[in-house]
Amino acid sequence: MHIHTAGAAVSVGHAVFEQFNAWLGQQNFSKVFFLVDEHTHECCLPSLLAALSHLETYEVLEVEAGEESKSPEVLVNLYYALTELEADRHALLVNVGGGVVTDLGGFLAATYKRGISFVHFPSSLLAMVDASVGGKTGIDLGPYKNQVGAFAEPLGVYVYPDFLETLAAKHVRAGFAEMLKHGFIADRAYLDVLAKEYTRGTPPSVSHIERSIEIKAEIVAQDFREGGDRKKLNFGHSFGHAFEGVYLAAGNAILHGEAVAIGMLAELYLSKKKLHLPEEQFKQGCTIVENIFGRTDLSVDAEKVFALLKNDKKNEAGKLRFVLLPELGRAQVDVEVSEEEAMDALHFLMHTKPA
Amino acid sequence: MHIHTAGAAVSVGHAVFEQFNAWLGQQNFSKVFFLVDEHTHECCLPSLLAALSHLETYEVLEVEAGEESKSPEVLVNLYYALTELEADRHALLVNVGGGVVTDLGGFLAATYKRGISFVHFPSSLLAMVDASVGGKTGIDLGPYKNQVGAFAEPLGVYVYPDFLETLAAKHVRAGFAEMLKHGFIADRAYLDVLAKEYTRGTPPSVSHIERSIEIKAEIVAQDFREGGDRKKLNFGHSFGHAFEGVYLAAGNAILHGEAVAIGMLAELYLSKKKLHLPEEQFKQGCTIVENIFGRTDLSVDAEKVFALLKNDKKNEAGKLRFVLLPELGRAQVDVEVSEEEAMDALHFLMHTKPA
Repeated sequence: MHIHTAGAAVSVGHAVFEQFNAWLGQQNFSKVFFLVDEHTHECCLPSLLAALSHLETYEVLEVEAGEESKSPEVLVNLYYALTELEADRHALLVNVGGGVVTDLGGFLAATYKRGISFVHFPSSLLAMVDASVGGKTGIDLGPYKNQVGAFAEPLGVYVYPDFLETLAAKHVRAGFAEMLKHGFIADRAYLDVLAKEYTRGTPPSVSHIERSIEIKAEIVAQDFREGGDRKKLNFGHSFGHAFEGVYLAAGNAILHGEAVAIGMLAELYLSKKKLHLPEEQFKQGCTIVENIFGRTDLSVDAEKVFALLKNDKKNEAGKLRFVLLPELGRAQVDVEVSEEEAMDALHFLMHTKPA
Repeated sequence: MHIHTAGAAVSVGHAVFEQFNAWLGQQNFSKVFFLVDEHTHECCLPSLLAALSHLETYEVLEVEAGEESKSPEVLVNLYYALTELEADRHALLVNVGGGVVTDLGGFLAATYKRGISFVHFPSSLLAMVDASVGGKTGIDLGPYKNQVGAFAEPLGVYVYPDFLETLAAKHVRAGFAEMLKHGFIADRAYLDVLAKEYTRGTPPSVSHIERSIEIKAEIVAQDFREGGDRKKLNFGHSFGHAFEGVYLAAGNAILHGEAVAIGMLAELYLSKKKLHLPEEQFKQGCTIVENIFGRTDLSVDAEKVFALLKNDKKNEAGKLRFVLLPELGRAQVDVEVSEEEAMDALHFLMHTKPA
């Protein structure tokens, strides 16, 4: 199946290696570079390479798995590596990995010699349904997630569902956070199906992966540079990024999807307070998240969370802004929230105060 | 005067401070940041600030003058500075400086939080007629000039000719290299006027600054991402960047314009060899360059020059490609040159072999 987004075409299915190989045969790249981490180097790259009869010379660049690789230091090392391997402007970068590899590799390609071509082979559920679609690329700056980046579209995104079998269960579960988010912001019926079918975090079906990509692609097509409705995709991410940054800075990194899951609980709480999300839907929403991610056990320094919340890219003129839900399946962007209200949401999560 | 390019409008003249101030009054930026070096901080920023009645809060970021500031380390420090000063996506960055500040500041703005707005106030002749026009931004990677960057247009370019009075004579002269280049590649009559009027490197008239910006803007408008004719603007730059990189790595930096001047001599030589540039025009061209820049006294390690030449962004599939002139005032892109021919040109420059 092909899903056409504003920019890149997304292909999903068991035939994507052959599709990429056929496309490669029609192109004229000077050299092909693969960016991987140690896991995808071992578990994904061999099967992909085996299918690429049109591939002549190539090089492999490996980074360490984990969010810590989305750093300026790793990026600069990769610039030097491409330079030493004589990558010219007609080179192709193939990113094979999760969101870290696709975000980092996308930004690397977007800025090396002012931009070379790139494609993504997302290997994690999160990268398949979220990170590899929509043209956002970037790196972190210490605890500040995606603080540096660019909007840049790959020439193609190839989603090979069998890669999910290489993932640990917690990584599959983390990807579910973004799929649930798609239901929360845009499709109540889809949310209910996900809630019913995946209480145990088993890998999702190809058709549900496609539905999530479709929802994301539709939103991105309307607003590529995030002037308006694209912000909906940040539901759960204002708090989520802040939690992720605080845990990362403490040397105790949690997965992006895990952070987003907790962030969605906080933002469901704010939705009730600010947009009158009905109590029943609020409870349903929390139950859906907790059935997959378990009961939240949050132990963070509230001050540090707030420092990062204030840096959120959606804020404007010093005011906190959130994406909140007036009802499950519908989102409203740019809802101003006071620091006190945000603190209430944090207390709700920390069970230090009744909801 | 306004010159409309593919993207940014370029304003030239004594009224540009007032024009910018009026524009600023119509905008709604969350905060304004000025990027300067120690010279423009002292010599240019005060007069600009004095004219900006619509400016409310602002911050000043200072980098050291010189090509060494176009580095990943300085860039990352600036990302942190913007973060700590709570720059959000609605901030404006005003770059006040020469090509180093406009290239660095442009890339900083293009990638901080995936892009904030920026404008340029070029303070050097080179930045006025070249670096600030056309949307190329970037930093160096060690000796590799502009190895990392992005195409990103400022919202405006404001050329205030009086800034030239703050420049040392050698910096004015360096800027002439790019003006001569505009004549060499696109306008023989303009080249002759420049050759006649500016043998001593006095600051050029406003009308000649405008003519150079026009030539550049016309070429860029046809080919923003440098797929074809925009490469003409690289005349003198294949060798020029290599010389610049070698001197920079040796801790003996020369000005970009000085390097380009020498590069144009080498590429005039190659133009004679490869495109039959008539001997008389070859000599005229060399005389024009040498009247302003003096006789070349090049002492470089040829091996190191070649290592950098091979990395030139215009090369493809391992072959050297140059912009050469079939006649003065007309350029041809993508001329393949063998390493032996390039070595000949280098020997010509080093006076180690007759031309």
